[in-house]
Amino acid sequence: MISVSEATETLAAALGGGEAARLAAEALVEAEALGLPRFGFDMLDEWQPGLVVPKAGSTTAMEWRDCAQNFSPLGVAAATLDLKQAARAFGIAAVFLRGVKGFGRLAPFARYLADEGLLAIAGAEGPPFVAPYGGNRSVIGTNPIALGFGRGEGRLVVDTATSTATMADVKNARMKGKPLKDGVAIDADGRPTTVAADVAALLPRGGQIGSLVGLIVEVLAGVASEGRGDPNGRGVFFIAIDAGRIGDPESLLGELRRDWTDAGGYWPRGGDVSPDTELDDGVIERLETQLARMAASTQGEDK
Amino acid sequence: MISVSEATETLAAALGGGEAARLAAEALVEAEALGLPRFGFDMLDEWQPGLVVPKAGSTTAMEWRDCAQNFSPLGVAAATLDLKQAARAFGIAAVFLRGVKGFGRLAPFARYLADEGLLAIAGAEGPPFVAPYGGNRSVIGTNPIALGFGRGEGRLVVDTATSTATMADVKNARMKGKPLKDGVAIDADGRPTTVAADVAALLPRGGQIGSLVGLIVEVLAGVASEGRGDPNGRGVFFIAIDAGRIGDPESLLGELRRDWTDAGGYWPRGGDVSPDTELDDGVIERLETQLARMAASTQGEDK
Repeated sequence: MISVSEATETLAAALGGGEAARLAAEALVEAEALGLPRFGFDMLDEWQPGLVVPKAGSTTAMEWRDCAQNFSPLGVAAATLDLKQAARAFGIAAVFLRGVKGFGRLAPFARYLADEGLLAIAGAEGPPFVAPYGGNRSVIGTNPIALGFGRGEGRLVVDTATSTATMADVKNARMKGKPLKDGVAIDADGRPTTVAADVAALLPRGGQIGSLVGLIVEVLAGVASEGRGDPNGRGVFFIAIDAGRIGDPESLLGELRRDWTDAGGYWPRGGDVSPDTELDDGVIERLETQLARMAASTQGEDK
Repeated sequence: MISVSEATETLAAALGGGEAARLAAEALVEAEALGLPRFGFDMLDEWQPGLVVPKAGSTTAMEWRDCAQNFSPLGVAAATLDLKQAARAFGIAAVFLRGVKGFGRLAPFARYLADEGLLAIAGAEGPPFVAPYGGNRSVIGTNPIALGFGRGEGRLVVDTATSTATMADVKNARMKGKPLKDGVAIDADGRPTTVAADVAALLPRGGQIGSLVGLIVEVLAGVASEGRGDPNGRGVFFIAIDAGRIGDPESLLGELRRDWTDAGGYWPRGGDVSPDTELDDGVIERLETQLARMAASTQGEDK
């Protein structure tokens, strides 16, 4: 048996070691532990030995980066680490990424910033799968929005898509020959459909509010990053605020959490898993396969 | 007849003149022109001659202000003007307000920042009227979130509540003896109700997505501002990014707008009205009543 922390160490080493590799590895192993392989080791399919090591060590309040030549989870992790330093230096800082391929989930990166004493807001745009509210074809991505704040037990990590479903859900339903739920998708004529093969666009989550929040994410992650429509990958943004400059945010966050959960509300924590969690054999096998492929392609490169 | 621009000039002068007074007056007159008096001249009920002139001229990347002693629309306007300078100086800046009473809508302030070449994000929390998704009593406010970006025709101004309705809607329904729509509210036992008199909490807009976005706004506007639960007023936040540092955001925003509207999506502009719009007699009368009250109370103060 291998634990989450052991798998993280092994993968971090294979990704070149250091802080960014560790954070990227944490994100991918966590997704596997949560049963979300397409945000986990599937990402390693994109890893190649010739990829550029992401820029690191920059401390500016505003930064734009093109991640097209990076292994994307490493590119996002390096940007997260630099954003932490920038937010501490300036009080508030932002980084806008473009050319990002699959990097996993926003939650682990937002949680990392929260643990480091920052309030983090993040979002990602992507290929146009989602129609505007009331519209008849796809314009924006599934555009998740995330927030991380607080530490330990009381920590809040929101990470939610602004669409009803993902294209992976549609593919799954199609492969299994199962119908989709009502209200998830429309066909090429803009009519509601539950037939996976007929899906032309997904619908925004919760109607107009999800559509407007998806549009906000599209502007921040796609337009402000200049990454919208870039064939090399998606746009991602992170804003971080130094919570150390707020008087006593932890106690106010604790009160909000008590009020929220006492009223029956769900307090999201972004799906964090204990480092001691034992990984399933299937997960370990997937990791070993990827590590073997990475080692073999590196040797091929060395010759 | 009086136009929007004439009414704005008159009200700005009555509020002491200057840039902040002008922006505050614009916001209130615009709400009246949109038929939303409770975000318009109703705000002037809070005006008193003894109120402190809001702090202005501060340029720091992060700022916290207590607006309890200001006329709130002026306090928010002054913070908006200073945020503009700070975002230009630092690339990104934020202001967190507490003790804010009625100040109108977020849209005019977000639009002002957009017109000044900034990308603005804003939100406001308020008295606990809204239950968490799946919850049985109210915890957060109707918590609007706003974004402003771009100029002129192509400008985007989102300003949307994260709740299904407002307590004003409930009061209206109660006064008129009309039922509420389904899915808007719950009673003291947490059960759905359409009887206005039985409403104990409003529900989040669009289910879980509206609830999570409401929670994000509560953290930024309530917790980070340290204003949550303050009996003197609500918490408000603004983040502004200098869009001049982005390469060519206007053309990307234009493409997004075309894609969005061509697909049948609604491109919100925050309800801006032309300065030449003629105001209704009822609106003019309301303004004159307020101006007379303000003049009389100032004279009373001078004696």
